[in-house]
Amino acid sequence: MDVALKLPKHSYTVYIDTNLLESIGERIKDLTQSRNCLTSKVLIVADSNTAPLYLAQVKDSLLKQGFKVSDVILPAGEIFKTASSVELIWEKALDSGLDRKSLMLALGGGVIGDLTGFAAATYLRGVKFLSIPTTLLSQVDASVGGKTGFNLRSGKNLVGVFYQPIGVFADTSTLLSLPEREYINGYAEIVKHALICDNDLLEFLERNLEKIKNRDSRFLAWLVEKNVRVKASVVAADEKETGMRAILNLGHTLGHALEEIGDYKVYYHGEAVAIGMVVACAISLNRGLITERDFARVTDLLKEIGLPRKPIVGPEPKLWWEKTFRDKKASEGVVYWVLPRKKERGGTLQDRFDRALYGNKVEYNEFYQAVDLIKEG
Amino acid sequence: MDVALKLPKHSYTVYIDTNLLESIGERIKDLTQSRNCLTSKVLIVADSNTAPLYLAQVKDSLLKQGFKVSDVILPAGEIFKTASSVELIWEKALDSGLDRKSLMLALGGGVIGDLTGFAAATYLRGVKFLSIPTTLLSQVDASVGGKTGFNLRSGKNLVGVFYQPIGVFADTSTLLSLPEREYINGYAEIVKHALICDNDLLEFLERNLEKIKNRDSRFLAWLVEKNVRVKASVVAADEKETGMRAILNLGHTLGHALEEIGDYKVYYHGEAVAIGMVVACAISLNRGLITERDFARVTDLLKEIGLPRKPIVGPEPKLWWEKTFRDKKASEGVVYWVLPRKKERGGTLQDRFDRALYGNKVEYNEFYQAVDLIKEG
Repeated sequence: MDVALKLPKHSYTVYIDTNLLESIGERIKDLTQSRNCLTSKVLIVADSNTAPLYLAQVKDSLLKQGFKVSDVILPAGEIFKTASSVELIWEKALDSGLDRKSLMLALGGGVIGDLTGFAAATYLRGVKFLSIPTTLLSQVDASVGGKTGFNLRSGKNLVGVFYQPIGVFADTSTLLSLPEREYINGYAEIVKHALICDNDLLEFLERNLEKIKNRDSRFLAWLVEKNVRVKASVVAADEKETGMRAILNLGHTLGHALEEIGDYKVYYHGEAVAIGMVVACAISLNRGLITERDFARVTDLLKEIGLPRKPIVGPEPKLWWEKTFRDKKASEGVVYWVLPRKKERGGTLQDRFDRALYGNKVEYNEFYQAVDLIKEG
Repeated sequence: MDVALKLPKHSYTVYIDTNLLESIGERIKDLTQSRNCLTSKVLIVADSNTAPLYLAQVKDSLLKQGFKVSDVILPAGEIFKTASSVELIWEKALDSGLDRKSLMLALGGGVIGDLTGFAAATYLRGVKFLSIPTTLLSQVDASVGGKTGFNLRSGKNLVGVFYQPIGVFADTSTLLSLPEREYINGYAEIVKHALICDNDLLEFLERNLEKIKNRDSRFLAWLVEKNVRVKASVVAADEKETGMRAILNLGHTLGHALEEIGDYKVYYHGEAVAIGMVVACAISLNRGLITERDFARVTDLLKEIGLPRKPIVGPEPKLWWEKTFRDKKASEGVVYWVLPRKKERGGTLQDRFDRALYGNKVEYNEFYQAVDLIKEG
């Protein structure tokens, strides 16, 4: 199942299937040839989770196709999503003799993808980039959109550039080896996609809780494809986030703040986003944009999946509020929130965007009341 | 004297005059308003050379126009053109509350311009960037072209992106306070411009050695404008260096290697480029692309200006040769050289590019002979 992304200046395909890694060398060879890339050197960037599982397989497969392959293994985790990690990639690229026609390959979750994409965008002012996302979160979210970058000491993803890969290989077999917490983590962005532009997806999730729990392989391939299509349609409409792409930030305004307050140790990204979504839904509820029943559907679904609906520590509304102003979308002291509203079925994509609300000014009072609601809920 | 750069997606003006700094706040206010930028916060990036001379003046001038101004002062010099310096800019931007509508302002030479441009391109995935080059080298060269970045431990400018400023203010009054060696350093790129696409400029330099020595202010403003026009015409034709922009690398293949071998302490950039140009000319001479007289004109002019024509240390042809393969333009083990050839007067810009040769494979033997020639010369 392939999803083609057509952007104004870059087009690429997200290949989604089980067992893609078994023939990854051949696939990458075909891809580089079809795109007329004279790549001979590949630098694989993995982390301490993915390297033991997949590095040897991917490396051997590439070597068999005649590529010269080197690798760098970074420590796993959001706390290592730093400039220092990018420097390790740059230095390894230099030591391995990568030139402007070479390829950097991300083998891991969202952190590895973002770091490798940034390194590829900036090494020699840009080399080829290819991604093999190995977590559910990165397959349904980070693999599409071209956002790359890393965290500063006091804020998430504050440094970055837009840079598109030449291709993405989402092998859903890799999801079977994910630890439970990491697997569930991926569902926050999936629920988000359902809330912002696909009511059918919401119902589908509600009806398939068993398959979610069992990691049914056909179900997962379908789910990843569906979500890649949702995100691709938003990104294709607004590659550089000058407008409606901001809708994808539902749950992220508070989510990023929670991650940062917890030093990226307390919450996984999806967990923080789940709590952020519940607060955004609570604001929508208080504004009358959605009903009590809509709100309950969201919290019930998150509960069934195993995602948090209220914070592990706190609530500390004042601290949270202040931290949201570090958000990249903050401008001149105002933070803009994405707030879900009741949607009708059907309509064009544009209709659906228009019905979901982005660019909302939220006052502290309103925020406080919403946090109060989820504390009780 | 303003030079307008029209690039496919970004246009901006290089303002060239004496005493521009006196009214810099007003000028920047006008510029941001005319470009519809709602900038209110400005981060000035200066270095330990420029801060004592100009920071207070620029800061006061901006404050008077209602901007909120913060600053960061980096240690001066090519050895500080590193990822760590960029991190200082990012962190200061964050601490000063810069958001996506804010402006980063480079106040200094090429190093400050390149670091600040990179920081602006990547902070929050891109904020506004404006440049006030204060050295001759940066006014005639780095101010135009949108190349930003920094050095890795073992190679110059190996990390970077293309990013265009919203405007450049080249105040030629700042050139009067430059130390002699730094002032002369700027002439290497000027001679390079003359060699690759402007015979008239070569003659003009030969006839105006007195004004060069005296730093005649009318002459300097004319000279900067002329050189900005030359570079702008090349950049406009090939913004991302997919083709003929590579012509601007005359002298840089060996020049960068020399700088690196000397740990960025032995040679200033222009000095290394001057030696690189002489070696390139020697290869051209041995190939019969230029005459003995052409070669002598170049070396005589460099001598009169005060630029080196042979290395301070060495020659060490084998070491130099190996280091040139670290060049960004190296690809699959081949380094491409720009070699001057005899030009006729007139013709279109394209004609003149066609007559200057870029993309030349040079063998070690040929390189060795050329180095041998300059050793004697």
